[in-house]
Amino acid sequence: MAEKSFKFKIAKEIPGALGRVGTITTPHGEIQTPAFVVVGTKATVKALTPEQIKDLGTQVVLANTYHLFLEPGEKIVAEAGGLHKFMNWSGPTMTDSGGFQVFSLGVAYGEVGVTKFAVEGKTIESTEVGLPRDEQSESYGGKLAKIDDDGVTFRSHLDGSELRLTPERSIEIQHQIGADIIFAFDECTAPSASLDYQKEALERTHQWAQRSLKEHQRLNVQARQNFSEKNLGGQALYGIVQGGRHQDLREQSAKFIASLDFDGFGIGGSFDKADMGTAVHWVNSILPVNKPRHLLGIGAVEDLFIGIENGADTFDCVTPTREARNGSLYTLTGRINILNAKFRTDFSPLDPTCACYTCQNFTRAYLAHLFRAKEMLASTLASIHNLYFFVNLVKNIRQSIIEEKFFEFKEQFLSNYHHD
Amino acid sequence: MAEKSFKFKIAKEIPGALGRVGTITTPHGEIQTPAFVVVGTKATVKALTPEQIKDLGTQVVLANTYHLFLEPGEKIVAEAGGLHKFMNWSGPTMTDSGGFQVFSLGVAYGEVGVTKFAVEGKTIESTEVGLPRDEQSESYGGKLAKIDDDGVTFRSHLDGSELRLTPERSIEIQHQIGADIIFAFDECTAPSASLDYQKEALERTHQWAQRSLKEHQRLNVQARQNFSEKNLGGQALYGIVQGGRHQDLREQSAKFIASLDFDGFGIGGSFDKADMGTAVHWVNSILPVNKPRHLLGIGAVEDLFIGIENGADTFDCVTPTREARNGSLYTLTGRINILNAKFRTDFSPLDPTCACYTCQNFTRAYLAHLFRAKEMLASTLASIHNLYFFVNLVKNIRQSIIEEKFFEFKEQFLSNYHHD
Repeated sequence: MAEKSFKFKIAKEIPGALGRVGTITTPHGEIQTPAFVVVGTKATVKALTPEQIKDLGTQVVLANTYHLFLEPGEKIVAEAGGLHKFMNWSGPTMTDSGGFQVFSLGVAYGEVGVTKFAVEGKTIESTEVGLPRDEQSESYGGKLAKIDDDGVTFRSHLDGSELRLTPERSIEIQHQIGADIIFAFDECTAPSASLDYQKEALERTHQWAQRSLKEHQRLNVQARQNFSEKNLGGQALYGIVQGGRHQDLREQSAKFIASLDFDGFGIGGSFDKADMGTAVHWVNSILPVNKPRHLLGIGAVEDLFIGIENGADTFDCVTPTREARNGSLYTLTGRINILNAKFRTDFSPLDPTCACYTCQNFTRAYLAHLFRAKEMLASTLASIHNLYFFVNLVKNIRQSIIEEKFFEFKEQFLSNYHHD
Repeated sequence: MAEKSFKFKIAKEIPGALGRVGTITTPHGEIQTPAFVVVGTKATVKALTPEQIKDLGTQVVLANTYHLFLEPGEKIVAEAGGLHKFMNWSGPTMTDSGGFQVFSLGVAYGEVGVTKFAVEGKTIESTEVGLPRDEQSESYGGKLAKIDDDGVTFRSHLDGSELRLTPERSIEIQHQIGADIIFAFDECTAPSASLDYQKEALERTHQWAQRSLKEHQRLNVQARQNFSEKNLGGQALYGIVQGGRHQDLREQSAKFIASLDFDGFGIGGSFDKADMGTAVHWVNSILPVNKPRHLLGIGAVEDLFIGIENGADTFDCVTPTREARNGSLYTLTGRINILNAKFRTDFSPLDPTCACYTCQNFTRAYLAHLFRAKEMLASTLASIHNLYFFVNLVKNIRQSIIEEKFFEFKEQFLSNYHHD
């Protein structure tokens, strides 16, 4: 029987803060942390080949369980030999639990309160969660998802068929998909939810964490009994801490999830920007030091510094690729809109200091042309650049911790970077 | 002063036919002929990076003068250092004259007849000529292009502005763009045009050929006088033979165009499938043997064999990439539609005999998933495969001529290949 191949080792810490440098070992290789996780929603990082993903410095790709569950379906991914073989990505992978997408399909409502968890809200954008805006008013009286203590019933945004996810089903699907790191099924509440509803949802998330863990263990035992070579202790399961912006709930959640036999932790929730660092600090002050922590869906430049400082090891976000496809491109001084007329005749690289493939080979004028001409290569080149920017920024933050210069680097970087 | 760097050398001929194997030398390298020319309409081969274009075996890329004239404009391409630098393609390039696109914008009409040259016809597809179908009825009483003996006035399909192309203007634009091989401005008539109109159009094409050549020579002299390093005899100009399906007109055109000091020849016109080989044979029986011939816009599998057999050296066509984006993929036995349900669970390569990047790394099931999910990577992987199929097929035809097995190879290949 294979030894458990998931490990986390800390090499260095930020003095006076919770941040650290480490290495996560997975069945498909190592992740040097802190690391930015590249999102490949439907088993493809939009507009990029696996070689392009790798060449820009990507260490780990996160696919979305909800999307793969709907299309092509987890059975096809399993038949293909799992996510890695299916998409031809040989490095480490993650899948989320599907919960975030299901809840973001409309309004999740329980017995106590009604949570307006809105696609139209700021924290979720329909393009990435796969929900066409004109389909938001279908079924369940204008709601696409209905929650109960056992799980969530929802309609597919693709064909309207009724589907159901429970903790057990989410874990089963994630085992079929076969990513190296998978997540417990949780309920993600909106920042606007009432305290009462948040408490109820948190209780449910904790029950679902236990059920997720139990199902994970059961499937592992079953796989060993069936002499299957697949997933023999290879998949790591992260439990998810919720609790919104409430210190007591966050701490309660961190303590409870920490008490269970997870391999690592996800920190979930839609934070207000100002609250994020505080909430991550509360949680990571409690979570055990020796297990990795993933901050779900966070990817603003400043948030990466704040998350790392407060002890988060990995981050995923669709922002770099989504912005790229809109022509919004990251530079050391802030984002530029390549559709601005002045770039049509700007024959310099997008960012002269950048070592990415796009900046090494193409000009702003060419990118401006491709975007105006609505050519697919525009998305490819812009995605390579934006992802490189994020992956490389986190790599540089990592290096600054190793060199004991984190705070200097943070101040220097953020003082040049214009936020918008 | 630089020696003229454009050369054509024949290495082998098909006994009893007009076909030959040769090498075209351009300022940006050699083209081993016969060769399939990959179309990069707007200075990008749709969905591919220059490295992907090169890796699939592409020798030469053809961009469209009409599209680059409209966007970004030839001045920007020139300022960028020319087409090669702009798109970062270091190999040989061509531009067409812009005429085909201008005439295909609607109905071209002269003094004698009215030629229904239709976007809605079989030979032209609006996607590639850049004309949205709902814009077809704008201006000029439902027509977008108006022809006179001096040139063509038309409206931009992008913003409706009135534009004009003449032979002189087309050559000037093509000099600015700076491709290695450029084409004389011609009038391309529809197969349905009356004989009287065809005669008139052919007369115009011949006058325009002379004017194109004269302007090309004038600009070269001017460039040398200005001590410009650009295009010092570097660009080759091909004259275009027209004449529709009429033997007398084709032969008259071939004789006239052959009498002018062109570096090579284009064979234009929208042929009926059955007529193509015959018309190319008429023309190439007259054109001088020692100059290369390009068959414009031809790219059905059988037509490549017929064109090569009848003495054409290069071919360009948007079919492989357009079909690729629609999920129609070439195999040795014919095209398959990857959206067919059976491919969802087919974990074999698209074509087990194919050495392209797509077939070496991905399954039919993954391609089916990408197409169903409408992911951009679908277009990238499919375009790589289809272009490889064409580029490699012509390369194999070349090899069969070298080995004196052309007719055997043709019969064997076409007997397995199912046309549709």
